[in-house]
Amino acid sequence: MKIGLIGLGRIGQVHLESLGAIEGVEVVCVSDIDENLCQKTVHKFNIPKYTLTYEDLVSDPEVQAVWVCSPSNLHYTHVTASLINNKPVFCEKPLEIDSKKIQQLIDQYPDINKRLMVGFNRRFDPNFSFVKSNLQKIGKPTILKITSRDPQPPPIDYIKTSGGIFMDMTIHDFDMASFMVGAKPISIFATGAVNYNPAFTGIDIDTALITIKFENGVVCNIDNSRKCAYGYDQRLELLGDQGMLSVENGKVHQASLFNSTGLQSALCKDFFIDRYIQAYSIENQTFIQCAQKNIEFTVTAKDALIALQLAQAANLSLKQNKVIHLND
Amino acid sequence: MKIGLIGLGRIGQVHLESLGAIEGVEVVCVSDIDENLCQKTVHKFNIPKYTLTYEDLVSDPEVQAVWVCSPSNLHYTHVTASLINNKPVFCEKPLEIDSKKIQQLIDQYPDINKRLMVGFNRRFDPNFSFVKSNLQKIGKPTILKITSRDPQPPPIDYIKTSGGIFMDMTIHDFDMASFMVGAKPISIFATGAVNYNPAFTGIDIDTALITIKFENGVVCNIDNSRKCAYGYDQRLELLGDQGMLSVENGKVHQASLFNSTGLQSALCKDFFIDRYIQAYSIENQTFIQCAQKNIEFTVTAKDALIALQLAQAANLSLKQNKVIHLND
Amino acid sequence: MKIGLIGLGRIGQVHLESLGAIEGVEVVCVSDIDENLCQKTVHKFNIPKYTLTYEDLVSDPEVQAVWVCSPSNLHYTHVTASLINNKPVFCEKPLEIDSKKIQQLIDQYPDINKRLMVGFNRRFDPNFSFVKSNLQKIGKPTILKITSRDPQPPPIDYIKTSGGIFMDMTIHDFDMASFMVGAKPISIFATGAVNYNPAFTGIDIDTALITIKFENGVVCNIDNSRKCAYGYDQRLELLGDQGMLSVENGKVHQASLFNSTGLQSALCKDFFIDRYIQAYSIENQTFIQCAQKNIEFTVTAKDALIALQLAQAANLSLKQNKVIHLND
Amino acid sequence: MKIGLIGLGRIGQVHLESLGAIEGVEVVCVSDIDENLCQKTVHKFNIPKYTLTYEDLVSDPEVQAVWVCSPSNLHYTHVTASLINNKPVFCEKPLEIDSKKIQQLIDQYPDINKRLMVGFNRRFDPNFSFVKSNLQKIGKPTILKITSRDPQPPPIDYIKTSGGIFMDMTIHDFDMASFMVGAKPISIFATGAVNYNPAFTGIDIDTALITIKFENGVVCNIDNSRKCAYGYDQRLELLGDQGMLSVENGKVHQASLFNSTGLQSALCKDFFIDRYIQAYSIENQTFIQCAQKNIEFTVTAKDALIALQLAQAANLSLKQNKVIHLND
Repeated sequence: MKIGLIGLGRIGQVHLESLGAIEGVEVVCVSDIDENLCQKTVHKFNIPKYTLTYEDLVSDPEVQAVWVCSPSNLHYTHVTASLINNKPVFCEKPLEIDSKKIQQLIDQYPDINKRLMVGFNRRFDPNFSFVKSNLQKIGKPTILKITSRDPQPPPIDYIKTSGGIFMDMTIHDFDMASFMVGAKPISIFATGAVNYNPAFTGIDIDTALITIKFENGVVCNIDNSRKCAYGYDQRLELLGDQGMLSVENGKVHQASLFNSTGLQSALCKDFFIDRYIQAYSIENQTFIQCAQKNIEFTVTAKDALIALQLAQAANLSLKQNKVIHLND
Repeated sequence: MKIGLIGLGRIGQVHLESLGAIEGVEVVCVSDIDENLCQKTVHKFNIPKYTLTYEDLVSDPEVQAVWVCSPSNLHYTHVTASLINNKPVFCEKPLEIDSKKIQQLIDQYPDINKRLMVGFNRRFDPNFSFVKSNLQKIGKPTILKITSRDPQPPPIDYIKTSGGIFMDMTIHDFDMASFMVGAKPISIFATGAVNYNPAFTGIDIDTALITIKFENGVVCNIDNSRKCAYGYDQRLELLGDQGMLSVENGKVHQASLFNSTGLQSALCKDFFIDRYIQAYSIENQTFIQCAQKNIEFTVTAKDALIALQLAQAANLSLKQNKVIHLND
Repeated sequence: MKIGLIGLGRIGQVHLESLGAIEGVEVVCVSDIDENLCQKTVHKFNIPKYTLTYEDLVSDPEVQAVWVCSPSNLHYTHVTASLINNKPVFCEKPLEIDSKKIQQLIDQYPDINKRLMVGFNRRFDPNFSFVKSNLQKIGKPTILKITSRDPQPPPIDYIKTSGGIFMDMTIHDFDMASFMVGAKPISIFATGAVNYNPAFTGIDIDTALITIKFENGVVCNIDNSRKCAYGYDQRLELLGDQGMLSVENGKVHQASLFNSTGLQSALCKDFFIDRYIQAYSIENQTFIQCAQKNIEFTVTAKDALIALQLAQAANLSLKQNKVIHLND
Repeated sequence: MKIGLIGLGRIGQVHLESLGAIEGVEVVCVSDIDENLCQKTVHKFNIPKYTLTYEDLVSDPEVQAVWVCSPSNLHYTHVTASLINNKPVFCEKPLEIDSKKIQQLIDQYPDINKRLMVGFNRRFDPNFSFVKSNLQKIGKPTILKITSRDPQPPPIDYIKTSGGIFMDMTIHDFDMASFMVGAKPISIFATGAVNYNPAFTGIDIDTALITIKFENGVVCNIDNSRKCAYGYDQRLELLGDQGMLSVENGKVHQASLFNSTGLQSALCKDFFIDRYIQAYSIENQTFIQCAQKNIEFTVTAKDALIALQLAQAANLSLKQNKVIHLND
């Protein structure tokens, strides 16, 4: 499969690295408005050509599928351009922050699930997918808990434009909750505080607890922190009436020291790319397999819409300090 | 110290076992309305006498301190009788379910903290007390998570009179949250579902998530389940800006089997007495030390009141499906 | 069952504590040459009588079974006196350090296995007995590794008379190896060094590695250290062609601290009585059940002989620095 | 640095993958007698040229350093050819199985440590190097235990020519022991059995225990198994008088299932390349850094000689069933 990739920033580089290791895949063109970055990238990854405009890439007859890794506010534009050119498209999250636009895509393309895959990479993490594929072992699911904590808060400038913690960080956890529970959320309550950097006050929170109730009786708690001294903390547990599935953090190494003061061992990874490097690779392979077999992608525009609606409802809940009921 | 103990049911027997192993402690009298039980108990523990009425016990000049292990609805009566007789008194939880009565005790006895200790035994568990005594190591606390799950649901008859899951089960977790955070709770939201036994519907829930916000910025999640296939699950984690303290469940043994299908190891304990046997012992020793030194007990009527108010607010939150604000 | 116990030192007290908690068991008499110790002990455990001579105890018609907890050099005398009086007898390890005397007992009493149980307590530890009872899950056993390390070296005076590390410490591990493998040992090699206290030089070693080959193809390594900074280290692993069974040390508590320097957790227990408290209780219950059913005890004079012969061969191997072949 | 690599089999491919990811490194030529393999390899890794004879590669003026990944019996020839051409050379283990030839190299090149690095890759594993770099934290080292078990026995044809388990498998552990202890070994005892495949009988063993005593008082046990149902088991522990450093196996994932029968979790990796992928990369980076700075390599011909001599002594010990004393 011959691929074109738009957007050569950090996440674009991650995908190029990942795509380069997949048999039978060739990145034939990349696009970015920064020509210098284009030149360095094609040299590094041995890519035959680059373009400075996304239009040239999506319309290039050699390009069979498009990866959208551009800044978030351009995702929708780049996705629709790909769709218009009849190219299956992978779009990094978030697909779009205006839910109406996502709904439009869904309405406009009845086969959108075969055309567009959204980059909720964590679904492809081998730990989380182990849980998903072993759900039948715990019987009826009842309590889902998701822990998601970043090592360090982002700069205040990022905070001002990110759309808030629920939109920039919890969005992954909203998708994970939907993925695991597979039922309709009926209400949400979100609370939080500014605990790490007083400069966030009035702009965003840096510590959050979110409670979601699903119509199948599952209650879900998500906890988020923008700071985590011991690394990038990404855990999950799902209780059922017959047992529990859990995902713990791995450790950076398996060496330990035992002495008279206790046992000291290593921490979890400190960076999302280290933690999810396998997930990006499996995500990309999944896109390629679905596209080649012409079957529906496993993460759809509908999934993006559900996560977005949960984030919007969480924002409203936080603002009004009340429970928000979710309707169809 | 010479002790009298009222109530010879299961928890009374636990305290007798525990008190019997403490140097310098002698149980000189027990009381229960069941004479047969009294006889068996004094024989088993080699106790010199028993009474069928609590009045005889609390007024017995030989009795220097009273343990109240009677049914919950009699706690208040037995406690006040002990106080009137100027005997320091240990009362199993709950002290009382009418918060006004607790307030009355507090108002009536300015030195109530030297007179009455309440049995929130989990505070004395070596794991949880390790966390409490190492709080300074994690800096400013930010997120507290408490997991508390019972192996099996109680009988439906118990449910009908228990006061509900928040009053009979979460009450321990409310106290644990107050103990760990040490700040005023400002709001609470509780939700849940009936997941295990449809017969509970309309009477109580069996799965719960509770969110408490404290005025120092800590947000707390409690999850409860009345069923837990893998045992009695009692965990806690407290995140701070410098690190995290956590308590995991121990295992019933340390043997494991590795084979081609994976690693199989043992479960946590299955019963609250097994899990907290050390806690009961330390609790009793703490009472005796405080009484002998005439210093304030470490779990007070005020603590019982705080936990009770949180349980009442949680009930209201569940009923109204809204956030409850807590006032002074 | 009415029990008489000889020897009121540390291990005698452990057994009295353990026996006191077993239903249907009554210690009716204790014996020690120290009358003061006798008096304190009968007071503490509410025992009706004591004697200053073991002869009075073993011949007391009320005594139905005898526990020998006296100093090692008196074990044989106290055991034979019990046997002559037709009392089933439990003897703390070592039964005797002269292998001929053990052989004599075996020859003299064809039903010695119903008369005498030897106190290799570790066999009754729930962890090790889990391994023993799950052996079929690992197929043909191939490699056994036993780690056994004491927290602190004993005083030099003890070393001078202990019979050496193999006799005073490894003897437990020799029995464990025999217990787990259940086959004839065919050769042994022992080596070691003085690593902790130069005063041991020429008297004993404080660090040892022992290799035993069994006729069923199992090779076994035992490592011993008389010092262990992190506590009392007692582990085992048994590899088979279908898997591995292992026993790890438990931790003194389950609380941990995660911070930017790593994860700090608790150590294993530091003292053999803490580590094996359950084992002593199960051991005593096993004796009582076997005696009541008049069936063979599970740890026999033959077992004591095998462990002793391994210790003697290890001493010879160390002295001559060569492999010792074990004959029938 | 411009590199030439000889030998395009499995381990050669591992090194090419690893070298390809190091900044500033370019593989400019590869060599193998299989032209088809050469063509596929240069295509896959985008390498400008290949040769069918190693002479052309080592004498190529563009080649600045040589990687010898050829079959073991050719290592010495390819190393000496590189040395004659004044190229720093990395040689996969074993350097050579004739210890005299290694001694010759050492004698002939006084600066051999700047010219030749030997591929004991496990030294570069982050877990083992953590232990090595934290040795000062455990005080005087006393007991070293190394566990090294392969998932499946090799084919019988391999066994016939491999030189035996000590030469083909334990050689890594002998180097690890020397690396960790850093003292002169004074004696060795090796034993073992055929436990998995009777066809090995008389040719080789498949289960081994090796005991090495070092002149600094450290005693070392190595256990090897050619079969391991639960994966590729690579562990180590080093006891000292102040504590213990240990390396456990990692797990392939961090998801677990808790149910009423216990806790089930994942196994360790199953293949040496998966387990040591990081080690190969760090090994290669280390070579390049040493070569560029013109400093001594960290794994030398002397190290290869020590490991080889231990393997030879182990063979002798097994054959004669006795302790072998090691002289200078």
